[in-house]
Amino acid sequence: MKYLTQKESQNLDLELMNTSLEMAGGFHLPQLMELAGLSVAEAVYKAYPPQKFPKVLVCCGPGNNGGDGLVAARHLSHFGYSPAVYYPKPSPKDFFKGLVSQLHHLQISPTSSLEDGKTFKPDVLVDAIFGFSFSGPIRPPFKEVIEWFFKKDAPIVAVDVPSGWPIDSAPLLEKPAAGDTSSESYHYEPDMLISLSAPKHCAQYFKGPHYLGGRFIPKELAKKYRIDGLPAFQGTDQSTKL
Amino acid sequence: MKYLTQKESQNLDLELMNTSLEMAGGFHLPQLMELAGLSVAEAVYKAYPPQKFPKVLVCCGPGNNGGDGLVAARHLSHFGYSPAVYYPKPSPKDFFKGLVSQLHHLQISPTSSLEDGKTFKPDVLVDAIFGFSFSGPIRPPFKEVIEWFFKKDAPIVAVDVPSGWPIDSAPLLEKPAAGDTSSESYHYEPDMLISLSAPKHCAQYFKGPHYLGGRFIPKELAKKYRIDGLPAFQGTDQSTKL
Repeated sequence: MKYLTQKESQNLDLELMNTSLEMAGGFHLPQLMELAGLSVAEAVYKAYPPQKFPKVLVCCGPGNNGGDGLVAARHLSHFGYSPAVYYPKPSPKDFFKGLVSQLHHLQISPTSSLEDGKTFKPDVLVDAIFGFSFSGPIRPPFKEVIEWFFKKDAPIVAVDVPSGWPIDSAPLLEKPAAGDTSSESYHYEPDMLISLSAPKHCAQYFKGPHYLGGRFIPKELAKKYRIDGLPAFQGTDQSTKL
Repeated sequence: MKYLTQKESQNLDLELMNTSLEMAGGFHLPQLMELAGLSVAEAVYKAYPPQKFPKVLVCCGPGNNGGDGLVAARHLSHFGYSPAVYYPKPSPKDFFKGLVSQLHHLQISPTSSLEDGKTFKPDVLVDAIFGFSFSGPIRPPFKEVIEWFFKKDAPIVAVDVPSGWPIDSAPLLEKPAAGDTSSESYHYEPDMLISLSAPKHCAQYFKGPHYLGGRFIPKELAKKYRIDGLPAFQGTDQSTKL
């Protein structure tokens, strides 16, 4: 299986949204984010159905990974879940404000308090904090969130990349023997990973259930990035188990 | 079942995309069009699977109904179809140009020639020419297209509204006894209808297989427009048979 480096992921993203004639992916961010978030919600549904896991807490970071989370939360609501959203650093961009409005209309009020998130007692946690652009260090308030992830109060589904993992190298999964157990010195292990478009380099070190979402890469781009060998999506599914 | 009038449909659309605080749907057009087009492709897949009906010709009008068609064509390609697109009046808007670029990247070159469309010998036709904003009269080149639909060279799937039908009254489905058989004096009957968000008034006169797509209406808006009694979508499906 081909894994994308951080640089390749960034280039693929740029090409998808490029509007020049030469390499016109021609996508607008709202389209890609809608399909990515929908595929996340679908994969969560497959692994953690709402009948058994009704309460999903989606933890959203400040950037596009967080946006995928906001979209996923909306679709989870339509799929019959009772989602809650932790979104402590809301983007000032109009489009992101719209994503939040859409949630309000489903009676979901994103909170900036991690305590609220914990009190919600989620059946599943979605980690949509950092994506493939992450380079660290982890700053507050997200440091605290990721440290909470270590506790595994509920199964954790990571979107694209487990937050805090280096994109292009191996995570540190063993707790250091010495006292230093901060989120910089070792990395939490999610219970499930949903790679978007293609797995990132660090995904090869994840041994749990691994889904692929983001069904929008044209064949020629898939060839160029050598991700055309990935397992095919089935039927009209927007996600597939790898 | 509740059917929306043209005015109600227009108001619902405006509310979905409203960004004022009072009634903030907060959606951006690319999001709604992506979900609408995806649901159309999914419903086509359910009724006309690609193994038996590989060649789909999507006929796209100049407005948003045409945009839904462009999005549907892209998803049909990802679902394993060989779609072709007839799009004689391309919108000059950037977002629509992007939708066309996205098709080019899947080796789909929209044509403005109806002859090309006929030569393609489609297994299924998608009518994405006019939506709920239609008020007539039908001008060239679409007059010719709709007259072609009467021939039923392939099963026809109408998106939201069969093109040419009045939105708020009954279509004229019987061929007039006298010679006047132009597309203004009577209306073609599709083989399948996919209503988006909710059926429009004229949908009650359609007796064939009827699907609902556009799974994005928040409950409070559904209540306000009295479309909350529509059959529920199942699981993660973006379309459902009514």
